[in-house]
Amino acid sequence: MDTETQLALLEARIKGLEDQLAIYQLLATYGPSVDSRTGDVTASLWAQDGRYDFGAAPLEGAETVGSLVNIEPHINYVADGCAHVISMPYVSVDGDRAVATGYSRVYLNQGDHWRVERAGANRWELVRTTEGWRVHNRINRLLNGQSEARSLLSQGVKPKE
Amino acid sequence: MDTETQLALLEARIKGLEDQLAIYQLLATYGPSVDSRTGDVTASLWAQDGRYDFGAAPLEGAETVGSLVNIEPHINYVADGCAHVISMPYVSVDGDRAVATGYSRVYLNQGDHWRVERAGANRWELVRTTEGWRVHNRINRLLNGQSEARSLLSQGVKPKE
Amino acid sequence: MDTETQLALLEARIKGLEDQLAIYQLLATYGPSVDSRTGDVTASLWAQDGRYDFGAAPLEGAETVGSLVNIEPHINYVADGCAHVISMPYVSVDGDRAVATGYSRVYLNQGDHWRVERAGANRWELVRTTEGWRVHNRINRLLNGQSEARSLLSQGVKPKE
Repeated sequence: MDTETQLALLEARIKGLEDQLAIYQLLATYGPSVDSRTGDVTASLWAQDGRYDFGAAPLEGAETVGSLVNIEPHINYVADGCAHVISMPYVSVDGDRAVATGYSRVYLNQGDHWRVERAGANRWELVRTTEGWRVHNRINRLLNGQSEARSLLSQGVKPKE
Repeated sequence: MDTETQLALLEARIKGLEDQLAIYQLLATYGPSVDSRTGDVTASLWAQDGRYDFGAAPLEGAETVGSLVNIEPHINYVADGCAHVISMPYVSVDGDRAVATGYSRVYLNQGDHWRVERAGANRWELVRTTEGWRVHNRINRLLNGQSEARSLLSQGVKPKE
Repeated sequence: MDTETQLALLEARIKGLEDQLAIYQLLATYGPSVDSRTGDVTASLWAQDGRYDFGAAPLEGAETVGSLVNIEPHINYVADGCAHVISMPYVSVDGDRAVATGYSRVYLNQGDHWRVERAGANRWELVRTTEGWRVHNRINRLLNGQSEARSLLSQGVKPKE
């Protein structure tokens, strides 16, 4: 194999690793942004036309998603003390599209301990933009026995070959 | 240093990164597979002769491990709503063997909140197969004060040099 | 572009990936070390002159940080069964300095379940030493509504450009 080909092959492998780690970084930014009510950071994780579908009417557009930090239940959560923690996801990249599958939990302060207020199944549909990976659609369903939550999880993983 | 040597050195570093991320991916697949009762995916994470040792009689063989999604307590957990979340592990690779050390938690729905039903110490002994990294043995012990759980954790980490 | 330049560019990208993964490994070692009371491992994560600031008088120096596994509340936690779990952090590297921003939780056994005893915002200020990345300062504040905790989170993340 000539040097140019070898370089190209290594570069492709590096790109694959960079994609996975960039998606980790994106998801790891979500919690710190919402728990500190830094809505412009939350918004910047989404594509301009991205959406967040959490079961009720979806939030449409990056700015609208960012504004979730200024709604009543969220303001109260943050005032009491909360942690939105995203698990290390399974990431599947296909060209300029990717899907990250995993869990979110919201821990809410109750004085001397924290209550697990929410545990959700998450499917993050991502798109590669000229500025990097962004959320095209986040679908989040509570793991309260509903089949929709299980579907998000099973959809995201396949048997290893 | 000649170009071939430089390429080989870079390739070795890339392989090290790929190993760590592939092991993350393997562990991140576990929860979504069991919480959606997709047992063939669970099974596919294990080597054919792999085992899962959780304190009682170990499950022996990939297929048997996958069938854990069809046993009574698990069926009820999933029906109520549960999340098996694996923490970002410490990964130690030695050739075609690796060990990942970290935590698992099971969150179980209780109506308006989730209870932390289990918190375990985990040692994942992994093997590189021709198809990629697989679980050779997962050892899981509840962090309920038993020394075995602490041993799994201390075994997996060493002082940084 | 000549081969030397191409190799140098790939090497820089690999180094960026190695930094992020090495910092993950450092943080993933913390929990297993403290929950098994392996204080020398805990100490080895910190730079010699590193500190751990958790709200009270900070622990100063790697050895002092490691000795936290031998103080009363911690001994009791471990005897009862506890899990110190660090979330997948957002990592920002700037030359030989880095900051990792994320969450810590302490799960404490209560017989048949675990209580979330602590949920904290964390800022890990890291330094590259000749032996690898080490903790220069860890700042940890409980997410109980105090503004200091929120500041640690907002400080660590910026809008994606």
